[in-house]
Amino acid sequence: MQRFADNTTPLLRDHWYVAALASELTAEPLERQILERSVLLMRASDGAPVALSNRCPHRSFPLSRGRVENDVITCGYHGIRFRTDGSCAEVPSQDSVPSALRLHAYPVVEAGPFVWIWTGDPAAARTADLPATPWLTSADFATVADYFFVESAYLRMHENVMDLTHLPFLHGTVFRSLEFARARPEVEAVGMKVRSSLTMPSGSMPPYLAKLVGSGAPASVRHTDAWFDGPALHYALARYSLAEPEADGRVDFLVNFLHAFTPATKTSTHYFWAVSRDAAVGDAAVDEECRATQRYVFHQDVEGMRWVEDLCGQEGGTPEELSVAADRPGLLLRRHVALMAAEEAAPAPQPVG
Amino acid sequence: MQRFADNTTPLLRDHWYVAALASELTAEPLERQILERSVLLMRASDGAPVALSNRCPHRSFPLSRGRVENDVITCGYHGIRFRTDGSCAEVPSQDSVPSALRLHAYPVVEAGPFVWIWTGDPAAARTADLPATPWLTSADFATVADYFFVESAYLRMHENVMDLTHLPFLHGTVFRSLEFARARPEVEAVGMKVRSSLTMPSGSMPPYLAKLVGSGAPASVRHTDAWFDGPALHYALARYSLAEPEADGRVDFLVNFLHAFTPATKTSTHYFWAVSRDAAVGDAAVDEECRATQRYVFHQDVEGMRWVEDLCGQEGGTPEELSVAADRPGLLLRRHVALMAAEEAAPAPQPVG
Amino acid sequence: MQRFADNTTPLLRDHWYVAALASELTAEPLERQILERSVLLMRASDGAPVALSNRCPHRSFPLSRGRVENDVITCGYHGIRFRTDGSCAEVPSQDSVPSALRLHAYPVVEAGPFVWIWTGDPAAARTADLPATPWLTSADFATVADYFFVESAYLRMHENVMDLTHLPFLHGTVFRSLEFARARPEVEAVGMKVRSSLTMPSGSMPPYLAKLVGSGAPASVRHTDAWFDGPALHYALARYSLAEPEADGRVDFLVNFLHAFTPATKTSTHYFWAVSRDAAVGDAAVDEECRATQRYVFHQDVEGMRWVEDLCGQEGGTPEELSVAADRPGLLLRRHVALMAAEEAAPAPQPVG
Ligand code: FES
Ligand code: FES
Ligand code: FES
Repeated sequence: MQRFADNTTPLLRDHWYVAALASELTAEPLERQILERSVLLMRASDGAPVALSNRCPHRSFPLSRGRVENDVITCGYHGIRFRTDGSCAEVPSQDSVPSALRLHAYPVVEAGPFVWIWTGDPAAARTADLPATPWLTSADFATVADYFFVESAYLRMHENVMDLTHLPFLHGTVFRSLEFARARPEVEAVGMKVRSSLTMPSGSMPPYLAKLVGSGAPASVRHTDAWFDGPALHYALARYSLAEPEADGRVDFLVNFLHAFTPATKTSTHYFWAVSRDAAVGDAAVDEECRATQRYVFHQDVEGMRWVEDLCGQEGGTPEELSVAADRPGLLLRRHVALMAAEEAAPAPQPVG
Repeated sequence: MQRFADNTTPLLRDHWYVAALASELTAEPLERQILERSVLLMRASDGAPVALSNRCPHRSFPLSRGRVENDVITCGYHGIRFRTDGSCAEVPSQDSVPSALRLHAYPVVEAGPFVWIWTGDPAAARTADLPATPWLTSADFATVADYFFVESAYLRMHENVMDLTHLPFLHGTVFRSLEFARARPEVEAVGMKVRSSLTMPSGSMPPYLAKLVGSGAPASVRHTDAWFDGPALHYALARYSLAEPEADGRVDFLVNFLHAFTPATKTSTHYFWAVSRDAAVGDAAVDEECRATQRYVFHQDVEGMRWVEDLCGQEGGTPEELSVAADRPGLLLRRHVALMAAEEAAPAPQPVG
Repeated sequence: MQRFADNTTPLLRDHWYVAALASELTAEPLERQILERSVLLMRASDGAPVALSNRCPHRSFPLSRGRVENDVITCGYHGIRFRTDGSCAEVPSQDSVPSALRLHAYPVVEAGPFVWIWTGDPAAARTADLPATPWLTSADFATVADYFFVESAYLRMHENVMDLTHLPFLHGTVFRSLEFARARPEVEAVGMKVRSSLTMPSGSMPPYLAKLVGSGAPASVRHTDAWFDGPALHYALARYSLAEPEADGRVDFLVNFLHAFTPATKTSTHYFWAVSRDAAVGDAAVDEECRATQRYVFHQDVEGMRWVEDLCGQEGGTPEELSVAADRPGLLLRRHVALMAAEEAAPAPQPVG
């Protein structure tokens, strides 16, 4: 078994991944490559999200190029019709419908700004296993969510968000202080998850938040609790505590940064993010400033990780990388991914006796 | 042995394929990839078509980049000269000509709108094996021919044209009636060929033909006799019979649809087509309407088969596909191709005794 | 062992190659792929050329995307700092510096218009092994140097420059006389080098030179002494001797053509060239005419060798090529490269006893 997962590690199927922004899904089918499969994404007439294998089992035509009417997808090649549960409704050229002729129907769940997909055996899909992200649907938070396609492996993205020491460098145009590079988070493995907690005496508030705050802002203390939640998800819960209360008595501001990574292939990734704040809720101007700021910053990660993947591709492989102390959470998560991959590859346990 | 040929099956060499439209060939060499080889195509000064290996055997320069004069091709690198029979006429840097220095000269035959090439051992080329397509050269027919490059495997194209159940779907903008999807052709294997015959009570006439016909057109009966003639060729002979005769007493109209598929690689295809009609012969306006209509329809196939190939490429392989009753002719032809591939791969029989 | 090296032969590492034009190197880092590695090229503050592995050993970020200050390169990801000798100056996130954290520092030497790089074990780099090209730095010569990226294998470029029989064909727009094709050079192996010497009664002078010369030019005799000096370098020393002396008594003109080939990958090459003349030294107008003329001619090679590589790629491999007498020097050099590759692959000799 590999000690640490890398670009050669098989992708993990038995998980919930974000398939799309909820706002992306309409009655019109959308094609997206997820874990090396072509997936059709759409909404049924009752608004429910639908995810189906996009390959027509007949002659491999992409069903996303077909037509949808009354929750029935008609293949654009020979017109075989499929229901949104994957079952076949009709084969125009004959009276009977072969039972094997069906689409893989992926379990899906919509939650706040995201639609999640279960890529493993549907029988094993349990909504209880969905990552808990209650702030995304809470009225106490305003959430801005968006999407990037990244030409880099999802593990590089996970390592990136897990290790804040890159802030003053990759994001040097935004974070000038070296404080983030010198921070010493507490790191612990919690089952297959990884937690990294950090308190910084003068951690920068995002600008769209700092603007809302009075004179105390520069003296804010930042507490961050970051989690590798599994292959699909990283989130960091940040609390900014002011040195002296605002006029309304307020001292603490919460900002939750969520990064969902869904492998398209072993070296490309769908990157969904959401930033939620418990201030200026309902203020569309702050929403837009948040979106612009975060897109700018996260795009630096997207571009940087592409450069890394390009260079490794140019040198023809998965290079050996040297680690420093700050990589402990990154190594832990890669260790966990290696363990999970080994478990998925293992034969299912047999009953004894 | 494979039961049904697919994208992994070796290409079949011992056949005549269409190399080019006759109108494409001039004194100026043309490069075309045929069965994974680079081929030079041109006309000799007497107008005869010529097909030669395009790779200079000396240092692999493409001879199509060289110069032709008096039926001698001068390589653009070191000037070695080759005759149109592939023999070497001169090596400028020395007095003698090594006998091994020669090009593969492909047997070629021009017939009507097409130039055919034999891709197997030239010694085995027999013009008697050329597919019989007499209507292409008959004065009773007007023929329009054209060419597409298709980013899809030639077998997908063969299956496409063999099975008319796709008409109301992939060509839904043209064929609205579901009649084609419900048709039940008679299918039979004839040696390595496959025949599919069909009579449809109200089969649509192509519009450039229907326009020429009086009130009887909607009631026309369509009889189609479609043939997988081998890896290189499919044709469908269609007879449209009017319910009542035209003013001139005419009842039947013939339209022959010919589709020639020449693999460039295992997943890309040169697609030559010809549509011949026994009406409005010599009418250039009908020719142009025929060309425009057929280009529009056949381009839907070209685009659709590219989508299929893309999707299969994205999922990394040759997927298992499920078949329905209407696939019988398609499966038969893939079965025949698998058999022919096995035969080509087998060692040549040795004389006994 | 292979008899003649081709595109499948491992690249030779234990050599000096040209990494860049001296004029390309500045304080700003430049990325260049050399022998399948990504290399960072720059100048230190004292002007010395620097070549380092461009991959940050930490998480593979391209250091060329980082920042340089006071001869220290700061990685653009987590800010690890490296000195121009490859040693690590600082890891911002911790106090200590792991000793393994260092860049490969390639030995480099600047000489005239070129910066050379040693791609083998640095301990084995000896400046004494640098190819001797004294004319490049001599005040008696004016040198014009330039660069092309070639999508073809470096061995094809070596064969190209070694064999002048291609002049009247690939460069038919410039060299019209067939004299070059009929020339019979003397060829000899000198150790791992190959020499090809030639005297031509009426060898063409380059036009920028011919213009400087009086009526005797057409009668000039050309003596060329061409050398395959190793995988990195070819040069041809040409002497043009006039039939009758110039007004100033001058009879001989020297032009040295240098071609340095540095493999980027097995099928792509950095091509640096320099043309040096011992006439019109210091005349910028002649420099520019020389540059324009030579770029035009050498670009015909660049384009032609790309066509060759494309065709071979299309036919899926490294074809067997047939040789003629004029290929003797080309075969010799490919033989030598095969020998050198075998030697590099061999285990290092062990002390005995
Ligand atoms: S490919 Fe979908 S119906 Fe045939
Ligand atoms: S490559 Fe054609 S003559 Fe040399
Ligand atoms: S990748 Fe260079 S410092 Fe981390």
